[in-house]
Amino acid sequence: MDAFVWPVRVYYEDTDSGSLVYHANYLKFMERARTEWLRQLGFDQSRLVAELGMIFVVRAMGIEFIRPARLDDKLEIHTRVRECRGASLNLEQTVNRVSSNPERLIEASVKVACLDAGTLKPLPIPAKIKTEIQDVG
Amino acid sequence: MDAFVWPVRVYYEDTDSGSLVYHANYLKFMERARTEWLRQLGFDQSRLVAELGMIFVVRAMGIEFIRPARLDDKLEIHTRVRECRGASLNLEQTVNRVSSNPERLIEASVKVACLDAGTLKPLPIPAKIKTEIQDVG
Amino acid sequence: MDAFVWPVRVYYEDTDSGSLVYHANYLKFMERARTEWLRQLGFDQSRLVAELGMIFVVRAMGIEFIRPARLDDKLEIHTRVRECRGASLNLEQTVNRVSSNPERLIEASVKVACLDAGTLKPLPIPAKIKTEIQDVG
Amino acid sequence: MDAFVWPVRVYYEDTDSGSLVYHANYLKFMERARTEWLRQLGFDQSRLVAELGMIFVVRAMGIEFIRPARLDDKLEIHTRVRECRGASLNLEQTVNRVSSNPERLIEASVKVACLDAGTLKPLPIPAKIKTEIQDVG
Repeated sequence: MDAFVWPVRVYYEDTDSGSLVYHANYLKFMERARTEWLRQLGFDQSRLVAELGMIFVVRAMGIEFIRPARLDDKLEIHTRVRECRGASLNLEQTVNRVSSNPERLIEASVKVACLDAGTLKPLPIPAKIKTEIQDVG
Repeated sequence: MDAFVWPVRVYYEDTDSGSLVYHANYLKFMERARTEWLRQLGFDQSRLVAELGMIFVVRAMGIEFIRPARLDDKLEIHTRVRECRGASLNLEQTVNRVSSNPERLIEASVKVACLDAGTLKPLPIPAKIKTEIQDVG
Repeated sequence: MDAFVWPVRVYYEDTDSGSLVYHANYLKFMERARTEWLRQLGFDQSRLVAELGMIFVVRAMGIEFIRPARLDDKLEIHTRVRECRGASLNLEQTVNRVSSNPERLIEASVKVACLDAGTLKPLPIPAKIKTEIQDVG
Repeated sequence: MDAFVWPVRVYYEDTDSGSLVYHANYLKFMERARTEWLRQLGFDQSRLVAELGMIFVVRAMGIEFIRPARLDDKLEIHTRVRECRGASLNLEQTVNRVSSNPERLIEASVKVACLDAGTLKPLPIPAKIKTEIQDVG
């Protein structure tokens, strides 16, 4: 199954004075990729909140920082569904540097839960989202 | 009139690969200082939203970046009220490096508006806040 | 003279609990746009540092926050050169919401200085950059 | 062995439009705590770079997001050394909400590597740092 691929460019805002991308910012890149993956399946998160009262939140994450990215690097975030359960998803995400000699920079497993936006209690993932995820992921 | 003084330490998250504090992050430091200034006057912003349905937002800002801060610097944010109007405040904020030879790094004038948190329409600043501001600022 | 236009999408990372884009983050959007404007003129900032030992830094900024952006908004940053001096540039930047009824959200004037990356002393803007800026801006 | 405890306050900059702290920002809080832990042992990271040419970087992290923090929350970051090896450290960090009814919000295991700041190759942790870590951690 193919991964969903999302490009990210590294700007000054992403770096720190070690001249590398600040480690927490890779989590932002991976969240952008999850957002765009849902969007191309037809689901904008602002509409999920407004219309269904649901939010996706990160429940757990395992992440390996293999190599660093730097200012101006072109990156690609690869996102794959590993498991779709009743109220949560397990995703695999990698961050890769685009170049003539591509490199894997980050490997992460991400557990995302579907919650009621008001109570923050678990909510079953709506069937129409689940169908799209399982067809595509 | 004395300024309200709030200390800030520079961490990796605040810097960029130019080895300086990323310019937008000084705005975060100044916002922390405004938040703590309101808090010591008795007003937590989360309660202003929950109890009075109001938020303070930045409407305009003039900012001079005079000298840069670096990793591990100890800074002090100085906040002074210049003018308190019906639904807005004009503040003067500076960012200073604490050392045996203190330096002014940033000078800013900040216009903050009081808004209805739902409609985002201007809201008169509540009298009890206004009183505290004018006594202290 | 045409503006350089750069698209930006609003993600969760950009918003705050007022459900609006956090004010300092518009400065990140405008910095991305300046970076891409320089890039399409042929100048990557990482190479300017490595090859010419120069950095561009923001010296001063006047900014008006007219209307707020929200999660999932599509924005466009418009960048225009107002003045190109020996060691600094004056730019005008606006942030606009893309929709059937486009709206101006932010107006800013930005003074950018060219500095020696080591000493942080002013450095004349290299002639080849100046030429490109004046032809295009 | 006692944990090193570092207080953190939640500001608007830390939250997102879900009205919770944005998940990546807990990593910033934990990095601030590691920095202050090293500082009180006598080691400022800016001096480690300047004097010893070494940086600490995060190599891997496992993190559970148990409960969310919100605007104005007072948090405490608890940091404990689990293992000190030749060129890396394993730490346990938790984020806790301070209140009459304290709550554990985040649990994380963090592997930090000591690298040569120039080559990014592994570097043995200097003996004087190791001694302090093992006495205190």
